[in-house]
Amino acid sequence: MADIRLADEREAPPRPLRRHLLGVSDLQRADVTRILDTAATLSRSLEREVKKLPALRGRLVVNLFYESSTRTLSSFDLAAKRLSADTMSVRSSGSSVDKGESLKDTAVTLAAYDPDVIVIRHPQIGAPQLVASVTGAHVVNAGDGKHQHPTQALLDLHTMQQALGRLEGLHVAIVGDVLHSRVARSLIEALALVGARSTLVAPPTLIPRGIEAMGCETTSDIAAVASADVIYVLRMQQERMLAGAAYVPSLREYTALWGITPERVRPGQVVMHPGPMNRGVEIDPRVADSEAALITSQVRSGLVVRMAVLYDLLTSGPVEVPVALEVA
Amino acid sequence: MADIRLADEREAPPRPLRRHLLGVSDLQRADVTRILDTAATLSRSLEREVKKLPALRGRLVVNLFYESSTRTLSSFDLAAKRLSADTMSVRSSGSSVDKGESLKDTAVTLAAYDPDVIVIRHPQIGAPQLVASVTGAHVVNAGDGKHQHPTQALLDLHTMQQALGRLEGLHVAIVGDVLHSRVARSLIEALALVGARSTLVAPPTLIPRGIEAMGCETTSDIAAVASADVIYVLRMQQERMLAGAAYVPSLREYTALWGITPERVRPGQVVMHPGPMNRGVEIDPRVADSEAALITSQVRSGLVVRMAVLYDLLTSGPVEVPVALEVA
Amino acid sequence: MADIRLADEREAPPRPLRRHLLGVSDLQRADVTRILDTAATLSRSLEREVKKLPALRGRLVVNLFYESSTRTLSSFDLAAKRLSADTMSVRSSGSSVDKGESLKDTAVTLAAYDPDVIVIRHPQIGAPQLVASVTGAHVVNAGDGKHQHPTQALLDLHTMQQALGRLEGLHVAIVGDVLHSRVARSLIEALALVGARSTLVAPPTLIPRGIEAMGCETTSDIAAVASADVIYVLRMQQERMLAGAAYVPSLREYTALWGITPERVRPGQVVMHPGPMNRGVEIDPRVADSEAALITSQVRSGLVVRMAVLYDLLTSGPVEVPVALEVA
Repeated sequence: MADIRLADEREAPPRPLRRHLLGVSDLQRADVTRILDTAATLSRSLEREVKKLPALRGRLVVNLFYESSTRTLSSFDLAAKRLSADTMSVRSSGSSVDKGESLKDTAVTLAAYDPDVIVIRHPQIGAPQLVASVTGAHVVNAGDGKHQHPTQALLDLHTMQQALGRLEGLHVAIVGDVLHSRVARSLIEALALVGARSTLVAPPTLIPRGIEAMGCETTSDIAAVASADVIYVLRMQQERMLAGAAYVPSLREYTALWGITPERVRPGQVVMHPGPMNRGVEIDPRVADSEAALITSQVRSGLVVRMAVLYDLLTSGPVEVPVALEVA
Repeated sequence: MADIRLADEREAPPRPLRRHLLGVSDLQRADVTRILDTAATLSRSLEREVKKLPALRGRLVVNLFYESSTRTLSSFDLAAKRLSADTMSVRSSGSSVDKGESLKDTAVTLAAYDPDVIVIRHPQIGAPQLVASVTGAHVVNAGDGKHQHPTQALLDLHTMQQALGRLEGLHVAIVGDVLHSRVARSLIEALALVGARSTLVAPPTLIPRGIEAMGCETTSDIAAVASADVIYVLRMQQERMLAGAAYVPSLREYTALWGITPERVRPGQVVMHPGPMNRGVEIDPRVADSEAALITSQVRSGLVVRMAVLYDLLTSGPVEVPVALEVA
Repeated sequence: MADIRLADEREAPPRPLRRHLLGVSDLQRADVTRILDTAATLSRSLEREVKKLPALRGRLVVNLFYESSTRTLSSFDLAAKRLSADTMSVRSSGSSVDKGESLKDTAVTLAAYDPDVIVIRHPQIGAPQLVASVTGAHVVNAGDGKHQHPTQALLDLHTMQQALGRLEGLHVAIVGDVLHSRVARSLIEALALVGARSTLVAPPTLIPRGIEAMGCETTSDIAAVASADVIYVLRMQQERMLAGAAYVPSLREYTALWGITPERVRPGQVVMHPGPMNRGVEIDPRVADSEAALITSQVRSGLVVRMAVLYDLLTSGPVEVPVALEVA
């Protein structure tokens, strides 16, 4: 799962993404740099009163979501609309999925409409690869099971870079339910790719065996967050925890031992969370609402980073600066 | 809750609405006049074959709906689209709301996308105020609990004005379940604002204690409708009535005593209903389908009044006449 | 139900469709020819990188769906968007339908918005006629109960014509649950209209009594498919079969006797299915994934045929060739 290419191989000259964004391993370091640069440019365009850009006019982005989501679906949908693309959202509820149609047949059906991009979220690992195998569209993984969520990793990098001015050499403590988290997997890989360090901090039962091979350290001692530049708090995935599986003795005990309280955040640190938060469980509301929290910045980064990814997939040649384009 | 400013204070020169439309008390009389004038102008533009206007091109309207709705959601969505704005609808089902995220966190998330307007419907009183407190967007209340539904009141005024030629001095009998009705609360306030009278006609159990302070009369005698210019029939909110709470002895008895039948409508009166109707309960189908009924006009008014509200919130300076603009 | 006009009467000069497309009987042969020609032209426009055409800019298409659907809803929605129309989708879930509003009142409400087209799917036969009676919009039937689904028949004709080069004189074997199938009813009628033959092949319990009057033959012998040019496999409508009604002894026995396996397809035949497929029930996966299968072509035809229908309903005068128009 880890990207095992040498750093030198990653330093290719800037060029558009390949066909798909299925995982962080689809990215070289130069891809990350280019996408984050595009995102920064797009971000400035959003400061204008009319925020829509004509770059993807006439294009079609299909959002195929098999899990509920406010943030990710609305973020992709809006990213496409801000670039003047048309969008169509297909959810598992109220669709042929209810009639038991297989993912493959649904994907083949959607592919027959010749969309430019299919964004997919699915509870099964590998679903985006399956979709990519039957379509001529670019496929973006918006979360597959506990595997990957690459645009989340990119938006987190963008948020860190904007807040702290750099990525290389940063130390990020990732705290919480790593076991069930595709966010953690993608982020560890992305941090390694840009030369940052990560330390997982969680109860032993929530740290996947052998995850150190992805290039991170692990500990169960919450005191380890003190040395990090960024405390990245994961959501307690209560809906993913099997009833009866005693990953943690109780939520109350979890909160006492690993919850991020004001006392556990030292001056100068920033705190991130992919949302939606369980306030009072993995994060204290006083932290969530403090100056140190970058949670709203993450949402905003999600929009511009997804705009940048769509832009990167659908435009070729040198990266154009959309700000120079006429507003629709 | 009632607007207690003096009539003189309300006669300010025309200017755009303030930042939000959370309740009728956000409006002065001049605001109502200006919005209804804009609605009348927009209404004429809808007589053309191509009905879309470019006024809000590039703008984003987010509809955040925590209660089911055909009329209000589709009306706002279409109002925005007719003015060339982009729209994004977020519903409680199939979203992070299912994961227990708080309204505040959802609002903060949506606000981070920098929409121009957030339209919110929510079962809790005050939800629109909460959203307004965390966003830079204009917020429009599309119904909060049994509190307010200001655009419904505006569309009802517009319908009355179009049908009867005036608002000042009109007498409106509001019949039915006033207790659970935000429509009634907003309408009473709006009628008072424009110099019209209202009389509530309902079983004593369905008239809120002290509501006369809002500027209306109350009675339980259905014969009182005879003196009104407008009979405004409220929906029996069966889904809001707690099981076992005996607000009315039975629906059959309610219909016999307060249902609006052809016998209870005198020539020259008009009948209104906010929909959806329970035909055969609060309104006789022969009345609903008669010439006296303005129910379809109300729906049409809903579209143009919401266009006018969006237009008023998002454009500044003198009220432009969109009909003069080129069609997209 | 069958179209009983003489062939000569059908050969009217090309002209736009009348107001509605409620069933195949609304079509004359010249209408079919014109729509399929427009679809073929539109199909070529989809080979370009930017696939959107400006033909219906500023128009509004409302999709009113009372049954779940991926294919049909997304196909109509996208057809409208590819022609630059705005769309609004209203589903039975999460709408006033939940509050028990009648179809007629919902239709009157939507009609008050002055959409250009209402596309309706409803479990009750005749629902589209009801909607047509209360609106000034063009109404397209997207499936009413087990009655009609005319755009499915048109897309099937388009698929056959593209694959086999002709329609007149073709022989189509329609295999499976004819009893519950609006697809079969519309297709039989459409095939007769264009001079093709159809033979229904199904268990006796699944062949409606007297259906031969529509102009088809019937048999329960699966060997009859051998003489056909096209094997058209119907979906086993498990969700429509009443529990306990023993239409077929078991799915396993149905599959053994009437399932379309590679052994039952002779070289040169093509196989069609309206989707979604029950792989391994009415169709063997090896057939569904074979070169003979036109199932993906059907989906693609669905898009261009629905574009052609919308185009035909909304544009008058000679049929313009949209390919010549500037891209939006």
